[in-house]
Amino acid sequence: MPSQFDPPSGTRDFLAAELSAREWAFGVLREVFASYGFEPLQTPAFERIDVLLGKYGDEADKLVFKILRRGEHESSGEADLALRYDMTVPLARVAAAYGAQLPTPYKRYAIGPVWRADRPGKGRYREFTQCDVDTLGATSPLADAEILCAQHDAMARLGLTDFTIHLNSRLVLGGLLEVFAVPPELGPGVLTSLDKLDKVQPAEIIAEITGRGLVAGVATELVGTLTARDAEERIRAALKPNETGAAGLDEVDELLGLVAGQVPENRIAFVPRMVRGLSYYTGPIWELLTERGGGSIGGGGRYDHLIAQLGGPDVPGTGTSIGLERVLLMLADEAAGDAARRRLEVAVTVLDDDLAGPSFALAATARSAGLRAGVYLGSSGKLGKQLRWAADMGARWCLIYGAAERDAGVVTVRDLESAEQEPVPAEDVAEYLAERAARG
Amino acid sequence: MPSQFDPPSGTRDFLAAELSAREWAFGVLREVFASYGFEPLQTPAFERIDVLLGKYGDEADKLVFKILRRGEHESSGEADLALRYDMTVPLARVAAAYGAQLPTPYKRYAIGPVWRADRPGKGRYREFTQCDVDTLGATSPLADAEILCAQHDAMARLGLTDFTIHLNSRLVLGGLLEVFAVPPELGPGVLTSLDKLDKVQPAEIIAEITGRGLVAGVATELVGTLTARDAEERIRAALKPNETGAAGLDEVDELLGLVAGQVPENRIAFVPRMVRGLSYYTGPIWELLTERGGGSIGGGGRYDHLIAQLGGPDVPGTGTSIGLERVLLMLADEAAGDAARRRLEVAVTVLDDDLAGPSFALAATARSAGLRAGVYLGSSGKLGKQLRWAADMGARWCLIYGAAERDAGVVTVRDLESAEQEPVPAEDVAEYLAERAARG
Repeated sequence: MPSQFDPPSGTRDFLAAELSAREWAFGVLREVFASYGFEPLQTPAFERIDVLLGKYGDEADKLVFKILRRGEHESSGEADLALRYDMTVPLARVAAAYGAQLPTPYKRYAIGPVWRADRPGKGRYREFTQCDVDTLGATSPLADAEILCAQHDAMARLGLTDFTIHLNSRLVLGGLLEVFAVPPELGPGVLTSLDKLDKVQPAEIIAEITGRGLVAGVATELVGTLTARDAEERIRAALKPNETGAAGLDEVDELLGLVAGQVPENRIAFVPRMVRGLSYYTGPIWELLTERGGGSIGGGGRYDHLIAQLGGPDVPGTGTSIGLERVLLMLADEAAGDAARRRLEVAVTVLDDDLAGPSFALAATARSAGLRAGVYLGSSGKLGKQLRWAADMGARWCLIYGAAERDAGVVTVRDLESAEQEPVPAEDVAEYLAERAARG
Repeated sequence: MPSQFDPPSGTRDFLAAELSAREWAFGVLREVFASYGFEPLQTPAFERIDVLLGKYGDEADKLVFKILRRGEHESSGEADLALRYDMTVPLARVAAAYGAQLPTPYKRYAIGPVWRADRPGKGRYREFTQCDVDTLGATSPLADAEILCAQHDAMARLGLTDFTIHLNSRLVLGGLLEVFAVPPELGPGVLTSLDKLDKVQPAEIIAEITGRGLVAGVATELVGTLTARDAEERIRAALKPNETGAAGLDEVDELLGLVAGQVPENRIAFVPRMVRGLSYYTGPIWELLTERGGGSIGGGGRYDHLIAQLGGPDVPGTGTSIGLERVLLMLADEAAGDAARRRLEVAVTVLDDDLAGPSFALAATARSAGLRAGVYLGSSGKLGKQLRWAADMGARWCLIYGAAERDAGVVTVRDLESAEQEPVPAEDVAEYLAERAARG
């Protein structure tokens, strides 16, 4: 039941456990991308509204969160700013703004929230983290291969194993349309229908394509070829004599050759019927699919004119987007676990007001040994209650410092796992804890 | 000259060098706070508008960025959401929403952007990063001491040395007003004036306070006491017989005692005239000031009723805010330097289309040795041009792999600092680079 204290619809509060897991994953991604020489970019949460609107069509424009003008203009009800809808429009603006300051090619990654006023649903948010990796200014297939390998490495380093990269080329699709003599004006619609072959029965797709105006016989043959057991063989044979198709096959094969040895063979496949909805791709395209469920966890391709279309300079580009929210859902909670269970590693009692100072200093001593440590901040002076607090914090050790310890110049170090405890000379506590922690 | 490609007024694009420095600093802060057992919290960029408005007064409300309703309601010109103005209102909401799920006390930090439609100026932004550390649910002075030490450690770990913590207590100020018989209704105004004693001449402050309605003799004596050479001594003597004042002195002295040994003595001082503008503080207050320029780089205090006032549960609180943008300006560019200068550590040539595959694999080999590595993505096949690219990338080594190297089964490893190069058997490149990198 939503309460007045819930975050706004479609957004989330991230408490410690989940946030730690997310930050761990972001850190892995940053490290992998940096290892390829991609550099980070962060743009503002909002852009001027004219920069954002009209770039992705009317439907997308409706999903943009618009910010009301301020001051005397507030009452106009007009918006002059809008929250970032994706990472690509800001990239185009940055490429235009800082052209000469940026290296050529410009290899950048961006990890951050984007906002879309979509209807919220299971796994669909209005504020979600997007992760894009792109190279602007390089036409070399090496640039595509680099993106593919970086994305593969990132997923692998996050611990994902059951995913496959489906690879295709817009030129393969273009060649197919030519070979099957699909009239150019029907091309985009036919591709949109073919894109659904993974989810929809071939008969339905044939009907849909025929409905779009393609001759029934051609539609049947096209869908039949794409869904045949030996589809790849048949398509390769059909495309070879076609100039566009042959170039597409070369593109795919070159890319497969480049990534071989870095992307395991069983994790990448040429899938000639894979379309990837967006029409701005111009060369290789790819999609990462999980085996269970078959959902997409990212994808991308080469887009040699998109940046100019978005208002940036006319530079070739290639890039990929990682469906980070889906990936995060798939990750085991391992990373989260420890930080969440162990709010503290060392919990320090405060058994008497007079002992607060030395107890406070003991926590600093434990931190100097590299451990997360804190003192009891409650009002009870009872050891039992403070030990329960230490256990609640998930602490590994409790440092007990009472009047007896003070008189003897020691600290009682209690191992909360074994419930064993021993007195340690006050001056040796840091070394003792560091040594115990190193033993694990 | 602002261009159409600039980010919106008062916001910034962070390119690699600056962003790396910022992320390094954020990482240091996270580590320090975690070492004290503070846990991270991240709330959405926007809140429902009724959660945000009316919490900080009309002036603040004007600075809130408001988000237009969507769909059919867009034309109403009304706003239903607003961008986060600070980290405290969301904290109050989270405390209300997740009360039982949160540990008691709830020790959290938050680092992230906030948005204020202020007039942009030098060092003043409309999107800036705020860093707050707070403990809710503890009345113990240990909680205040923990916050103070964590903030001190964070600044020290960032490499700041020339800062001082000015410490005071609202009770000291309350006691002063009582001792000088300032009528209660004049109290807040008088404090506001006294807060300016660092910047404005005492005579002006006396005039201002007199203007507020305080008897001139009292105003002169009050300001005289606060600005005397032996101000602390005089104030301690004056406050001792006053119940509120004496409690304030105890509070300050206890806190000074607790942090001694963790905060160097020369970095913290009792400053009885320090007010800290915000009226919601109820106990100790502090401010971090840089010595050069004297600007504030953060501050906080105990606020035992604020969370309830902001719509959260009635829990005591204490916390601090770090003026991160100012701190980042003060940091040397050390952290940024390396990543920015060295876009790549290892640059790999691509001297021929036939050699693209093995060159691409060589970059992966260098990454496996833990180095940032990438291949040449341009179209020139000339070694000279590719070596210049390698130098532009700031690479330490260039791996040259041409036909001669292929035939000999070696890779030429060129040290771009010494301009020396030597052939290395292809299978030994990873080990060779790792070993050279370890030597520095």
